[in-house]
Amino acid sequence: MSKLLIVGTVAFDAIETPFGKTDKILGGAATYIGLSAANFNIDSAVVSIVGEDFPDSYLELLKKNNINIDGVEIVKGGKTFFWSGRYHNDLNTRDTLETQLNVLSDFQPLVPKDYKNAEYVMLGNLHPLVQLSVLDQIEDPKLVVLDTMNFWMDNTLEDLKKVIERVDVITINDEEARQLSGEHSLVKAARKIEEMGPKYVVIKKGEHGALLFRGDQIFFAPALPLEEVFDPTGAGDTFAGGFIGYLAYTNDVTFENMKSAIIYGSNLASFCVEKFGTERMQKLDRKQVNERLAEFRKLTQYQTHID
Amino acid sequence: MSKLLIVGTVAFDAIETPFGKTDKILGGAATYIGLSAANFNIDSAVVSIVGEDFPDSYLELLKKNNINIDGVEIVKGGKTFFWSGRYHNDLNTRDTLETQLNVLSDFQPLVPKDYKNAEYVMLGNLHPLVQLSVLDQIEDPKLVVLDTMNFWMDNTLEDLKKVIERVDVITINDEEARQLSGEHSLVKAARKIEEMGPKYVVIKKGEHGALLFRGDQIFFAPALPLEEVFDPTGAGDTFAGGFIGYLAYTNDVTFENMKSAIIYGSNLASFCVEKFGTERMQKLDRKQVNERLAEFRKLTQYQTHID
Repeated sequence: MSKLLIVGTVAFDAIETPFGKTDKILGGAATYIGLSAANFNIDSAVVSIVGEDFPDSYLELLKKNNINIDGVEIVKGGKTFFWSGRYHNDLNTRDTLETQLNVLSDFQPLVPKDYKNAEYVMLGNLHPLVQLSVLDQIEDPKLVVLDTMNFWMDNTLEDLKKVIERVDVITINDEEARQLSGEHSLVKAARKIEEMGPKYVVIKKGEHGALLFRGDQIFFAPALPLEEVFDPTGAGDTFAGGFIGYLAYTNDVTFENMKSAIIYGSNLASFCVEKFGTERMQKLDRKQVNERLAEFRKLTQYQTHID
Repeated sequence: MSKLLIVGTVAFDAIETPFGKTDKILGGAATYIGLSAANFNIDSAVVSIVGEDFPDSYLELLKKNNINIDGVEIVKGGKTFFWSGRYHNDLNTRDTLETQLNVLSDFQPLVPKDYKNAEYVMLGNLHPLVQLSVLDQIEDPKLVVLDTMNFWMDNTLEDLKKVIERVDVITINDEEARQLSGEHSLVKAARKIEEMGPKYVVIKKGEHGALLFRGDQIFFAPALPLEEVFDPTGAGDTFAGGFIGYLAYTNDVTFENMKSAIIYGSNLASFCVEKFGTERMQKLDRKQVNERLAEFRKLTQYQTHID
């Protein structure tokens, strides 16, 4: 059984959408990635940090999903990372209302001994130096996937570049790909980013799907057209978790298999956005997931001969 | 051989993009639709109107592409419809700089006798009353496709609704679908628009592809990721021309075949945007078209079993 090591935030979120608002609820990149990857029969562990205010029930939830949390440090007297944001009416854009780094500001990640030999490593969105520290602790991974965002490009670009140099796959959104590369065309952007290190570039376009690039090869997976998007929080992390979870489960990192991984990631993300926070991801069953995979297939596969 | 009747503008365009600008060049919805549909072995005709200033060479170009122009009225002393616009840097949005209706303001379309029995009818984007007049002149079409835009929704909504009521397929862009339906979700928007008349709704999302809806069935075709988009003018019309041209050529209006038609339309549109105006569409050969169809296939088709 493949081991998947996930580093990222485990946090409190408070979310406002046009449909309602939440108090502090469970959030964080590593949480979404972990819950998404938990849909596969793999051995995963999260490296993160929380404060003493973090409810046991949330940690239990991760454990119940077979996620090892030995690497989640609980800081006595500390407060958990907190983010709050408000989505605009189209749900494509949001304003950050508040960010409290709290215990995250001094986070020194410690990879549990049993996971130093993890074959699959997911560097969730956080400070590049934390991501680098995790890379320095792992032995000989088969595949390292990096997720990041414009905040680190704006503020810690040199550190971020050192991470990018060392990963196999990078997942970023279209605007971030343009920022990082200085190219408007996503085809050109992906090529420039490949030159920075990663063999594979995944560009996330939200409701418009995701593109996978490797050299001249391109694969595209749409997002499932949904009647309602309720809360987009965590969709990107859920996508990444499904992507690497599927790769770890199949233990196959070919381009061909990555196509399926992209579809799997998109599929799981389509559930994530149906409820606030992680709520929907806590109640997924295999039958629902498979039904929607069939919908994905119908959405893009054509049998007729048109050439 | 199926007959395809196209009504729409045959016009002058002057275009500015970040890459350059043109003087008055050949443009117009019917022109793009006709040149795109000309990639199929069908019998097509254009109903339109131009002024005495319209060059013979442009009319010859249409004829050379086997497009019957008996229905193109040439108004002695009249001036041809003229549009000029400037694209923004991202090429997704544009400002109209000038619109001169000229001969178009008194256009009374006359369908040539030989095409009153056309099986396929493409109502290109122009005044809904002109579209209605064409519908009144044709006998018993197998498929009528309507293209329209927000301008008619803003200014002549009641007339437009009368057209929508009578067509089989409507093609509009995502923002227009939202405006017409009052729904933000494209799934809900398509359902509401179906209730207005069309059995099929095609929602164009530009660089993000196109969606085909019929009841609960959805098919999605991506746009081909391109290194450069040079000039988006006419891309939507080229898409529509490829869509109905393929349907007319195969004479098969099932949902399954419409999937291929959508791919064909997207494929031809991907060529259109590579040069200014109609330039690229004048020099297409079958081999290029087929090579790119294979690229489309690679872009979205996956063989692995993922359920």
